[in-house]
Parts: sequence; structure tokens; C-alpha cells
Amino acid sequence: NGRPVFIVARKGAASAGLESFPHRIVDLGDIHTASKALREAGCRELVFIGKIGRPRPSELRFGWRNIRYMPRIMKMIMGGGDAGQLHKLAAFTESIGFQVVGVTDVAPELLAPLGILGACQPVEADRRDLAQGWRIADRLGELDIGQGCVVVRGRVLAVEAAEGTDAMLERVAGLGPWDGAGILLKKSSSIQDSRMDLPVVGPRTVELAIRAGLGGIGLEAGKTIIHDLETVTGLADRAGLFISGLAGEGGELSDTAHQQG
Amino acid sequence: NGRPVFIVARKGAASAGLESFPHRIVDLGDIHTASKALREAGCRELVFIGKIGRPRPSELRFGWRNIRYMPRIMKMIMGGGDAGQLHKLAAFTESIGFQVVGVTDVAPELLAPLGILGACQPVEADRRDLAQGWRIADRLGELDIGQGCVVVRGRVLAVEAAEGTDAMLERVAGLGPWDGAGILLKKSSSIQDSRMDLPVVGPRTVELAIRAGLGGIGLEAGKTIIHDLETVTGLADRAGLFISGLAGEGGELSDTAHQQG
Repeated sequence: NGRPVFIVARKGAASAGLESFPHRIVDLGDIHTASKALREAGCRELVFIGKIGRPRPSELRFGWRNIRYMPRIMKMIMGGGDAGQLHKLAAFTESIGFQVVGVTDVAPELLAPLGILGACQPVEADRRDLAQGWRIADRLGELDIGQGCVVVRGRVLAVEAAEGTDAMLERVAGLGPWDGAGILLKKSSSIQDSRMDLPVVGPRTVELAIRAGLGGIGLEAGKTIIHDLETVTGLADRAGLFISGLAGEGGELSDTAHQQG
Repeated sequence: NGRPVFIVARKGAASAGLESFPHRIVDLGDIHTASKALREAGCRELVFIGKIGRPRPSELRFGWRNIRYMPRIMKMIMGGGDAGQLHKLAAFTESIGFQVVGVTDVAPELLAPLGILGACQPVEADRRDLAQGWRIADRLGELDIGQGCVVVRGRVLAVEAAEGTDAMLERVAGLGPWDGAGILLKKSSSIQDSRMDLPVVGPRTVELAIRAGLGGIGLEAGKTIIHDLETVTGLADRAGLFISGLAGEGGELSDTAHQQG
């Protein structure tokens, strides 16, 4: 949205396209180099992008200039739930002088809108599975377990925890095929810092949902990042998979966008 | 406990040792043959043993004498949660003249006792993981998701749904190794018919927990079937894995057997 951007990428995790932006690639754990690069580029706000994993201590490359950060970083990655870890990471980032800003604030166009995306519509049984998946995902989020689940005709087939959505969908494919019944539901956790770890859905998610034979995907509107919307809807439309942006305010699940109804 | 036994085994699922009991092997779905065999053997009580899966319609071998059972069986296996399915199966079994009896009633010696089994003790951090796993498993049971989870130092790594405990432990091994931290917790569901589907732990469970590098296993005392106790504790002792029979009445988790303390 017009603001200048500087990217700090973790070595080994940098994606294509990085070269077209001013950037610096740093070792994981090298807070000193990262914050120095950000400061020199004049950055004061910081957006975390992509899944924030929990590195093994052996993966970290501290170097002597980072010794002072070590105790807090070790405390963040050892034990505890994901929500606690991310709250600590946000607090740490702000303590070294950067304001943490969410994708929601700087690029709302990446978030799933309310309503049906693409050409396919859920049938009545899908809507019941969506409502059940929403309730389940809501509880999973409160318990700090994960952000997704798969429901097939009233039965919870799989729950996402540390393995992530892709591994969950591969498991569901192995248990199936489900012949176009059932849904994947992704919903953000109510106890997590929503600037840090919103659910992300991309072409790979759709491919795996198609391979598992699910009927569709339900996403929390305004709280799920869609990566490469055009490819996502293209894949879904060709396979007959629906994608529905949902909101559950007031306990009633809805995918009717206000401008449509 | 001295009562005569007659076994009806599903074709393809019969285990070794079956030959030493009067038995009949039947096709899945052939209620007619099964109930005729049971009646001729004078059976009036029926114990379901082993995991009751959800067969695909194509796996069922009805035959014309079973036509009258078909609608109810199809209704049982299509859709809905596991708890509902098992309540329906119990009601169906009783409607055709057999009283459903739980393993708890006929062979309480197979159930996990309260207290530490084997030689290894949980450390304080394990006890916290056990308490968290118990709370999580309790909620999973209420939501009819599954009967197990893995917690490593305060983080829920995996939740068991349709894939079962073994697949969950294999996943945890792939995410690890966990170097002796963390626990597997198995707890029965409060909404399921406890005559039908108690959690089962056996040598394979212990082998997979060892391979994942977990510190131990927590089982609901009196509600978890231990298959081959001697092998289970032998494996656990050699690997330094603890096994703890737990009860959570009053909200306070305990593995202290009354006779010990």
C-alpha cells in the first residue's frame, strides 16, 4: 500500500522474488545483524510473514554479538504452547525497538473475503460439516492445539497440531478417498497474537484437499491469508472444490458477504 | 472369570489363539450367521473386543438373509461421530437379543491399574505434561474427536482422530526426536459407550512411543485395556519409559494407588 519495504529473510527460507526488493539474508538467531539491517534501512514497523516455526537450539547461529539475546531466545523456543511463544516473540521484537504490525494491517487484500470464492458452492451436508469444523477449530484454538481440522459428514477425521495442514491432508488422503464429501476448515486461534500467525492457504493446500477427495475448504474471513488467489480458485474450480470465506459472529456461521445479500 | 466363551470373529481380523476357543468366523456384515452361531452356542451376553472400525459399504458381505438388517447398518456406518455410531451399534445388538457387556465387567484384570507400572518414574516436567494431556484428552473426548494426544513440555504436538494412536506416534517420531521429553496420553471419551471402545495400549504402542523418544505414557486407570502387560512393562523398563495409570476425579490428577499411599 505504497509504504517502502525492506525484507530480512532467514537463510534457507528465502523465496523467489526476494531480489526485486531491498533485502538482507541472515542466519537464524542472528538478531544483531537483522536489527542492524532494519535500522539502517529506516524500518520501525515489522511484519512477520510465513509460518513461525520452533527452531532446534542447534539450528541457531548466534555469534558473539548475539550473546545478550540468547537467554530470552532459548526461553522462547523451549517448551510451552505456540500462543505463549508468539506473544513472547512479539514482546521481544518490540523491546528491541520495532513495532510489530500484522498482515491484516498492511495488506488486507491478502485475506480471505466473506463469501464463496470461485465457482463451486457447498451443498447442505457440506454446510453442516463447515459449522461443525468451525466449532471444533474454535475449541482447538482455545486449547492452543492448532488452527485446522477435517470433518467428513459429521465425523472429525483429523486435527492439526504441530505437523501442519499439509501433513494432516496427506493423512486424510491415506484414510480416504472421500468422494467429494467433507471439508477442511482453517480458523485462527482466539488466544494467539493475530499479528504473528494467521492461517495460510495456498495452491498446495488446495492440491492436497483435492487429492484427499474433500468437497471443499472453509476459511475464516479476514483472518486467513490466501497465497496466490488466482491459482487457488483456478485449481478449485477445475476440481469442483468449493472455497468459502466464513464468519461466525453471534454463533451463526455465515458465508454471505454483506454486499451480496 | 470362569464363564464359558464363544467367539465370533470377523473374517480377516481373527488373531492367533482363536483355535483354542469355540468360535465361528463370519463375513463382515453377516449378522444372520453371527447371531445364529451365538444363539446355538447359548450366548446371551456379548462383549465387543478390539477397535470397532467404520467399514466401507463395499467391504460388507450381506447375503440375502441379512437384507432386513441392511438399512440400519448403512445408517450406522454412514456419517456422524464415533460416539453416536457406537451407541447405535449397542442398541442394534440389544435389539436382536444380546446384552452388550463391557470388558470392564468380564475381565477387569485387563485394565490399567492406578499407579506406576514398571520400573520408571515420571519427573516433575512429565507430570505437568500428563496433567495437560489429560485436560486436552478430556476435551477431545467430549468433542468426539479421539482418545489420545501427545504433549511435549507444555506443547500439544499431536492429536489423535481417525488415524489412530499408531499413526499419531509415527507422526510424532517424524517431528522429533524428543530426547525423553513428553508423553502420550490415552483417555476414554466421556460421551462414548464405555462397553464399546475403550482405549487399548499394547507392545506396539510402547515400541512407537520409544521410537518417538517420548518420556512416558499416561493411561486412564480402570478405563484403558493393556494388551500383554508383561511385554509392555518389559519394553518400557528397558527403554527407560514410564507408564502411569492415572485418575482425575475432582480435577486433581493422581497416579498414587490407594494401597500404596
